[in-house]
Amino acid sequence: MTRQLHLNAFLLNLGHHEAAWRHPASDPTRAHDVRHFVELAQIAERGTLDSIFFADGVAIRGNVRHNSQGGLDPLAILNAVATHTSRIGLIATVSTTFTEPFATARAFATLDHLSGGRAGWNIVTSGTEAEARNFGYEQHLEHRVRYERAAEFVDVATKLWDSWEDDALVLDQAAGVYAATERVHEVNHVGTHFRVQGPLNVPRSPQGRPVLVQAGSSEDGRDFAARHAEAIFTAWQTLGEAQAFYADVKRRAAAAGRDPERLLVLPGVVPVLGSTEAEARRLERELEELLVWDHGLAQLSGILTVPLTADDLDRRVADLDLPPEAEVNGNRSRFTLVADLGRREGLTVRQVIARLGGGRGHRTFTGTPEQVADTLEEWFRGGAADGFNIMPPLLPSVLEAFVDHVVPILRDRGLFRREYTGSTLREHYGLPRPASSVAAGRVRGGSRLLQAAAGTPDGAFGGRRIPAPTAS
Amino acid sequence: MTRQLHLNAFLLNLGHHEAAWRHPASDPTRAHDVRHFVELAQIAERGTLDSIFFADGVAIRGNVRHNSQGGLDPLAILNAVATHTSRIGLIATVSTTFTEPFATARAFATLDHLSGGRAGWNIVTSGTEAEARNFGYEQHLEHRVRYERAAEFVDVATKLWDSWEDDALVLDQAAGVYAATERVHEVNHVGTHFRVQGPLNVPRSPQGRPVLVQAGSSEDGRDFAARHAEAIFTAWQTLGEAQAFYADVKRRAAAAGRDPERLLVLPGVVPVLGSTEAEARRLERELEELLVWDHGLAQLSGILTVPLTADDLDRRVADLDLPPEAEVNGNRSRFTLVADLGRREGLTVRQVIARLGGGRGHRTFTGTPEQVADTLEEWFRGGAADGFNIMPPLLPSVLEAFVDHVVPILRDRGLFRREYTGSTLREHYGLPRPASSVAAGRVRGGSRLLQAAAGTPDGAFGGRRIPAPTAS
Repeated sequence: MTRQLHLNAFLLNLGHHEAAWRHPASDPTRAHDVRHFVELAQIAERGTLDSIFFADGVAIRGNVRHNSQGGLDPLAILNAVATHTSRIGLIATVSTTFTEPFATARAFATLDHLSGGRAGWNIVTSGTEAEARNFGYEQHLEHRVRYERAAEFVDVATKLWDSWEDDALVLDQAAGVYAATERVHEVNHVGTHFRVQGPLNVPRSPQGRPVLVQAGSSEDGRDFAARHAEAIFTAWQTLGEAQAFYADVKRRAAAAGRDPERLLVLPGVVPVLGSTEAEARRLERELEELLVWDHGLAQLSGILTVPLTADDLDRRVADLDLPPEAEVNGNRSRFTLVADLGRREGLTVRQVIARLGGGRGHRTFTGTPEQVADTLEEWFRGGAADGFNIMPPLLPSVLEAFVDHVVPILRDRGLFRREYTGSTLREHYGLPRPASSVAAGRVRGGSRLLQAAAGTPDGAFGGRRIPAPTAS
Repeated sequence: MTRQLHLNAFLLNLGHHEAAWRHPASDPTRAHDVRHFVELAQIAERGTLDSIFFADGVAIRGNVRHNSQGGLDPLAILNAVATHTSRIGLIATVSTTFTEPFATARAFATLDHLSGGRAGWNIVTSGTEAEARNFGYEQHLEHRVRYERAAEFVDVATKLWDSWEDDALVLDQAAGVYAATERVHEVNHVGTHFRVQGPLNVPRSPQGRPVLVQAGSSEDGRDFAARHAEAIFTAWQTLGEAQAFYADVKRRAAAAGRDPERLLVLPGVVPVLGSTEAEARRLERELEELLVWDHGLAQLSGILTVPLTADDLDRRVADLDLPPEAEVNGNRSRFTLVADLGRREGLTVRQVIARLGGGRGHRTFTGTPEQVADTLEEWFRGGAADGFNIMPPLLPSVLEAFVDHVVPILRDRGLFRREYTGSTLREHYGLPRPASSVAAGRVRGGSRLLQAAAGTPDGAFGGRRIPAPTAS
C-alpha cells in the first residue's frame, strides 16, 4: 500500500473565515449549539477523516463586537460528540499554563474511555495577557517558562495515565477483588512546578494515553514537539517553508531518540472550494466583502505586537517597525509567519488582514476539488506533510464539500483510506499503543500505601497504614 | 396544588451499596461505560425526576482492591448525557479547592448551554489528604480556609456567569455586529484567593447561572449553604435530626436575607426495595453478605479518624476514643453523623460498617414501594425535607423499581409531578432565573477595553487601547 495521508478537520464556530458567521449560509446561533458540532463530527466521520479538532483559549478572543465567539469548553463538546460517533478521533486543546496535571490527565482519560480510545490532546501553553489575567496573573508567564512547565506537566500526566497497569482492573465479583492493587501505582512526582502523588482515579484508558498533539512552531515549540508530540499542527504559506519545517522537526525527533515516523506533521490548509474555479473565487470574494476592517486591525496589532490604526491600512508590512522575534512574548510562530508573509509578498496591512481573515495565517487555497487535491498531493509527496489540518472557511458547507468532493479524489489516487481499518485515533494515525511506563519498582519511592495493601490481600489493611489525621 | 416534593437521583457506579458491584445483577465493567449513565438518566427522566447527580473526588477512594471506583469526570458524563435527554436536571460535583473560578464557571456555563438550561453545581471543598496530595499540597487546607476560598470562588464564578448580559449576543449578520460590547463586562475581581479580569468567554447561559447545591452539614457548611446554596444534599438518620437541621438552615437562610423557600433541603435516602417486605429484606441480606470487612474497617477508620483493625469489629463505637468534632479536619459532618449513629444505637464497629456499606451514613430504608413512599411522605410533611436525594443501592435495577413503583404512589398522593411543566432545572426546583448582577458601572473599574470599544462601534479601535507587548 502506498503511504497514506492523514486528515484532521479543524472545527471552529461557523468556519475559519473571520466573516463566516455573517455569510448567508450561516446560522450564528449554532456556535453555542452542541448539535452543530455533532453534525460536523458526523460529516467528518462519513468522510473517514482521522479526527476532528478544537482549538481553545481561556479568554474572549479579540473584540466580541465583530468576532464570532464560540467559547464552549471543547472537552465538553467532544464528550458529547463521542456518544454520537464511533470512529473519528477527538482532539481537544487544553493549556498547561492554567490547569493542573491531575485534572487534565483525568479529563483526557475520561474522554478516551467515553469514546472507546479516540482522545487526543493538543497541548498549548497559552500566549495572551487576557488569558493570564483570568487566572490570577498580571502578565503571562515568559515563553520559555511556559514550555518548561508544559514539559513537566506532560511528564506528570503520562505517569498518571500509566499509573494503572492495563490489567489492574480485575472485577472478580466472587472473590470481591475489584482491582489488583499491586498493579496500581502512586507516581510520587516532585518537580519544579508540580508535586503529585497519584495514582489517577481512572483506570488506564483504551489508548493507554491520548494522542499528544502540539501546535507551536517556535524554537521552544519545535523542541517540545520533537520530545513529546505525536502530531504537529502547523501553519506554512509556501511549500519550501513547509518542507524545511518538516525536515527540521523530523531531524529533531530523531535527535531526541524517537522514530520520526511517529511524529506526524499536519500543516493547516483553508480550502475555499467551488465546483468551478469561478465559483470558488466567488465564495472567497463573498467572505472577504464581509470582513470588518477595524476588527482586522485590532487582530493584526495583537499578532505583530504594534499598534495599528485605519491610517496604516495601505502601508506595507515591510515598512512597519516590528520587534525581532526573540522579543515577542506571545505566539512567536504566528508573529514570524505573518511578518514574513507581509514582507515576502510585499503586502499592505489591508492585504494581510484579508489573508488572515481567511485563515489566520494558514495557507488558503481557492479552487476546485481537483485543484485542492493536487495541492494536498504535491505537499504530501513533496516532503512537506504527513497529512493536513483541514480548516473549512464555512461550516458545515465547506466541510461537506471537502468530504463529498475532495476525499473521493484522494481515495481514487490511493492516498486516503476508503474505510476505517482501526477504531482508535492511534490506529488511524498509525501510532503504537504505549505500554505503561510505571511498573512496580520503576517509580522512585514505590507506592507505599497501595503496595502495602497489595501485600496483604486478605489480611489486615490495618491500623498503622491508615493515614493519621492531619492535626499537629 | 399541594406542595410538591423534589426528587434527585444520586448516581454512583453500580449503586450506593459498597458491594453493589459484586451483586449478580451488576456488570462491573459498566462503571466506566458512559452508556450505563445515559441509561440511568433516561430511566430517571422517564420518572419525571427533577435531576440526576454525581458526587466526585480527585483521588482514588479508599482501597481499590475491594471498592468499585468509577472515577470518570462527572462533568464529562453529564455533557454526554445532556445530548441524550431533554428535561432532567444534571448536577455535577466540582471542588473549589483544586480548580480555578474561570475554568469552573466556564464548565458549568457550557453544560448549561449544552443541556438547554439543566446544569447544577454541587460545590464541595474536598476533605481528604489524598486529594490534596494530587494537587501539590502536603496536607489539605484547613476546613475554615477551604470554606472561605469556596465563598470567594462562588462570588467570582457568579460575576463571570453574569458578565454577559442576557441580550449581549446581537448576531446581526448584515451589520456585522456579533455582540453588544457595552453589555459584556469585565469583572475585575481582586480578592484574597483570586484575581480574575473576565469577562467569561461564554455568553450567559439559559439558566443565567447553574443551580448551586451544597452538601456539607458542618457549621461552616451550613453557613455557606445559607448564603449561597439553592439546594442542600444532607444525611440524617432520624426524623428528629432531619427536622432540626431543616429548621436550622431555613432560619440561617432567612437571617442571611434570603427567602428560605429558595433553599431546598434534600436528605439522602437509600431505598432497598422489594415487592414484598421479605423480598426487600432478602436484597438487603444479599448485599450485606457481599461486604468485605477489611475494606469496611479501612473506610470507617478514615471517617472516624482513628485506626481500627479486625480486633475492633465487635467493640462498641461508644467505647472508641474519638476526637471532638472541632479537631476533625476532614469531612466533619460525616464524622459526627457516624459517631452519633454508633453511640445512639449502641452499635458495634461491625454493625456500623454494615450500615455504612448500605449508604455511607445516609438513611437506609428497606421495604415495599408503599412503605418507602410512606417514609418519604412522613419526612416531607413533617418539616424534615423539601424532597429527597434518592440513592439506589443497586443500579440500574433499584432506580428502575423506584421510578416504576414508588413514583406512581407519590403521584397518586398528589405529592409529585405527573409530567414536567418546565424545561430547566430551575423550573423543576421552583427557583427563579437570576438577573445578571453585573451591569455597566456596577463593577468597580468598569470594563476598560470593552467599554472603550463599545464607545466607538464603527470607529477607531485604535492604537492606544491595544495592550502593549509584555517585554522588558
